[in-house]
Amino acid sequence: MVFSSKLIEDAVQEFSRLPGIGKKTALRMVLQLLKMEKGDVDGFTNALSKMRHEVQFCADCHNVSDGLVCAICGNRARNNSQVCVVENIRDVIAIESTQQYNGLYHVLGGILSPLDGIGPEQLNITTLHKRVKDKGVEELIMALSPTIEGDTTVYYIARQLQGITLRITTIARGISFGGELEYADEMTLAKSIAKRLPIENYVSVNGK
Amino acid sequence: MVFSSKLIEDAVQEFSRLPGIGKKTALRMVLQLLKMEKGDVDGFTNALSKMRHEVQFCADCHNVSDGLVCAICGNRARNNSQVCVVENIRDVIAIESTQQYNGLYHVLGGILSPLDGIGPEQLNITTLHKRVKDKGVEELIMALSPTIEGDTTVYYIARQLQGITLRITTIARGISFGGELEYADEMTLAKSIAKRLPIENYVSVNGK
Repeated sequence: MVFSSKLIEDAVQEFSRLPGIGKKTALRMVLQLLKMEKGDVDGFTNALSKMRHEVQFCADCHNVSDGLVCAICGNRARNNSQVCVVENIRDVIAIESTQQYNGLYHVLGGILSPLDGIGPEQLNITTLHKRVKDKGVEELIMALSPTIEGDTTVYYIARQLQGITLRITTIARGISFGGELEYADEMTLAKSIAKRLPIENYVSVNGK
Repeated sequence: MVFSSKLIEDAVQEFSRLPGIGKKTALRMVLQLLKMEKGDVDGFTNALSKMRHEVQFCADCHNVSDGLVCAICGNRARNNSQVCVVENIRDVIAIESTQQYNGLYHVLGGILSPLDGIGPEQLNITTLHKRVKDKGVEELIMALSPTIEGDTTVYYIARQLQGITLRITTIARGISFGGELEYADEMTLAKSIAKRLPIENYVSVNGK
């Protein structure tokens, strides 16, 4: 792409560094910013800059936070005996968006993946161990990806915590709501039959 | 989506104002920025802010410009007897990227579209007229979208310039009907400029 303006070129260049943004999409974004009021563009760039410079990571759960401790860990109305272990921040947002969970989180920062060079030292497992021992955690809910790496991580953590009185659970695997049976993969379908629930439980799970 | 950090929420909110960016994509972008070095994020936001505050529009051709006159109009190596009339800035970038055209441009800022309330007054037609009369333009290459609105605009401009000795051509119909100029591949676009037709041929081709 040949630009006649260095200012536009630089902006497009910077934009196309973001994931999934090619040159054409970057150009569309830049031209959209060019159409916006200067004040609105300042609002946009300031919000991003402020976010990058001021966001911290919660000292307890490693979630993004506006202060030393995140809004979830700092909320006394939440059940601090339950900790949901997730891979990353996006998972916290996904679970929070269901508005069905009232415990705390622990963000691992990834899952064990030797091929990618991610071992236990790269994950926030030591702090999880300490938290479970010192903070009266009664249940760990493992909400990791249903992959071999995810399962390995679950087993690794469970083994690390052996000897501590603690309930360790994983989120249910099965056919998603609205999903069609015939399109489910064999593994999921097999698991969902093996782990079938009595109708009463199913109803109560739905809260009906 | 429920965020536990206001900083993240604000950044996602701002990002999702851009065209084609939903909340999930915005979040992915924001988390990517969060992973980047602070200095790189500053580079990103500064480039966008600088672009919005400093970009001007060329006094001659209305293209984006880093100064009063754009780099194309200010380039003495270019053929200033040829002016390529385009709808918008994206079209200039698309044609420049073919590296096959050495004349100047004139950015109309749209095409005639009565239904959208775009009449001749909303377009940069008066300045085009003045430019043709005063600046020794010998050829106008109409590179507008091959749509009814594009054709109407071509005819309107041609009629306005009646009486002035001038060759008016249009880019060749290598581009499919209903296709938008900016999505054409560079080869097709280059050919369509090289094989431009005099207006008479253009009319007979259309059988009008």
